[in-house]
Amino acid sequence: MKTTIVKAFGTKAADKPLIQMDIERRDTTAKDVEIEILYCGVCHSDLHTARNDWGGTKYPAVPGHEIVGKVTKVGSEVTKLKVGDLAGVGCIVDSCRECNSCEHDLEQYCQNGMTGTYNGKDKHLGGHTFGGYSEKVVVDEHYVLKVPSNLNLAAVAPLLCAGITTWSPLRHWKVGKGSKVAVVGLGGLGHMAIKLAKGLGAEVTLFSRTPDKKQDGLDLGANEVIISTDAEQMKSVRGKFDLIIDTVPYIHDINPYVSTLSINGTIVLVGYLGGLEPFLNTVPLILGRKSVAGSVIGGIAETQEMLDFCGEHNIVSEIEIINMQDINEAYERMLKSDVRYRFVIDMASLKK
Amino acid sequence: MKTTIVKAFGTKAADKPLIQMDIERRDTTAKDVEIEILYCGVCHSDLHTARNDWGGTKYPAVPGHEIVGKVTKVGSEVTKLKVGDLAGVGCIVDSCRECNSCEHDLEQYCQNGMTGTYNGKDKHLGGHTFGGYSEKVVVDEHYVLKVPSNLNLAAVAPLLCAGITTWSPLRHWKVGKGSKVAVVGLGGLGHMAIKLAKGLGAEVTLFSRTPDKKQDGLDLGANEVIISTDAEQMKSVRGKFDLIIDTVPYIHDINPYVSTLSINGTIVLVGYLGGLEPFLNTVPLILGRKSVAGSVIGGIAETQEMLDFCGEHNIVSEIEIINMQDINEAYERMLKSDVRYRFVIDMASLKK
Repeated sequence: MKTTIVKAFGTKAADKPLIQMDIERRDTTAKDVEIEILYCGVCHSDLHTARNDWGGTKYPAVPGHEIVGKVTKVGSEVTKLKVGDLAGVGCIVDSCRECNSCEHDLEQYCQNGMTGTYNGKDKHLGGHTFGGYSEKVVVDEHYVLKVPSNLNLAAVAPLLCAGITTWSPLRHWKVGKGSKVAVVGLGGLGHMAIKLAKGLGAEVTLFSRTPDKKQDGLDLGANEVIISTDAEQMKSVRGKFDLIIDTVPYIHDINPYVSTLSINGTIVLVGYLGGLEPFLNTVPLILGRKSVAGSVIGGIAETQEMLDFCGEHNIVSEIEIINMQDINEAYERMLKSDVRYRFVIDMASLKK
Repeated sequence: MKTTIVKAFGTKAADKPLIQMDIERRDTTAKDVEIEILYCGVCHSDLHTARNDWGGTKYPAVPGHEIVGKVTKVGSEVTKLKVGDLAGVGCIVDSCRECNSCEHDLEQYCQNGMTGTYNGKDKHLGGHTFGGYSEKVVVDEHYVLKVPSNLNLAAVAPLLCAGITTWSPLRHWKVGKGSKVAVVGLGGLGHMAIKLAKGLGAEVTLFSRTPDKKQDGLDLGANEVIISTDAEQMKSVRGKFDLIIDTVPYIHDINPYVSTLSINGTIVLVGYLGGLEPFLNTVPLILGRKSVAGSVIGGIAETQEMLDFCGEHNIVSEIEIINMQDINEAYERMLKSDVRYRFVIDMASLKK
């Protein structure tokens, strides 16, 4: 298969910084779309993959799955996009397309394993996939999103992961006008959860551990901010929420949040992968028919729905633009939560 | 308020056996129904309450909330039942009737606290309520169920708690024709879960720790029995179930069952009140949008729906009839799971 060499930024080992490198991109097949990447958001998963925090990273690793850019080439059978169109690519670049999940537009739950935008198994070239920290990407049109033209393009990038990760549970659990939604944690995911829930007509509460994010929460659209370390404030929202989106990416006690769920309420974990410590108490679940659930990103159709919704409601991410060469420093700042709320790489910097 | 003395069986302390005693029943008010109790099922909660296992038991304690009998008197405004009708009383004899839950026929989740059939706060006489181990009970008609006349009356009694406890989650999570349902644990609740899920048209799997209950599971209507200690068998049902009803009343690891849920599947705990040990792993929840939920008994309208369904489908509990005087021995046998699957007291024995 013919390929082209493109510039990228990646790392050759878990303990090495990201550096510029060359990678191969396949030439477009009949169904492929080639995209010149203009901006790429920086997700915590990028950092975890680069550093092999979850195990299983293949090197060299080129992260990036919040990709926006312009279509530069399309295969002969492509109908969804044309050269010059704005386009987006999220966390998924392929899936089996045959299983029950794929048939129901739930590619994120593909039962044969979806292909991640990076560190996935490359079905075309063999080896593993390379992400958006690069000049170009070539993706089957089914997994390419159309991007509304009225939005700040750089600020659209984080919608492809942070946005859809919170949108999908909001939609699955049928949030709408009058819903009472709470968001735990104010980071890349949390700030999108507030904006999207608000956009859907919900009454939105932000849980934050410290008062210093209160004004930010309100500015982003939250109706109230509850300081979770304040027992009196926690008591004031007991039994209140239909849905809680918990975006906290590290181990934490979810029992106090379960107490704030209404009868039939659900807390959805989208950030923390691991064991629930301290023990989850079943008593409030049973006596209130409450649920603890999880959710990961979203399907392609749902991602398009979210982008269209954001176009209509003028919703984008709050971002800080960086150059590609600043990525290692950006990772260090992310580890200190020193970003409000998402780094986005201006990929023009890679051409320098 | 005028009262009548009736015979009952109860205990005066956590470490004392149940003995015969006299209790008071109020005279019927305009909305009340007086029922001569013919049979009363024996629930694990009876034992836990008698022995103060959960704390908070008020003595003397008269358990029993799986009550069936005949209407002997009705108040002037009662329209639901008349003298001579078969009637049932479950776990709830009153609730606030004003909160959001009560307004939606979810009296079991009454936000001001439903009144338990025993050990609840008696709104009429003060003190606490006495259960069905007695000759008669007087209950507001709203909380009295109509009992289909075509069923074995003694075997109907356990439907009022074991039946509705499993029916409610089956209905809430929309089990029907083609649903794949699993039941964990084969006791009073588990055997009803199999029968009711089967009645609703589901394909039913029983999880059992030991092979000795396999034939029983099949006889009760399960399509298959999976021995949960057999890794190969567990692997064969990975990702299979839409809904799992977990009836196990003691601490146990639910993670292996979560693995057998399908995408969007839910495991509902109805038996175990406490902390989930070992830790619940969020990874399969997130990567499969799975839920861990709880559920308690059911509302009055839903209980009536279940009784009517059982009448139509000829579903009753598997029971062993005992005399009232055998209750202490029955409790000991229950602790050894030596009952298939529910003791029911023939209340005629109390008259002796």
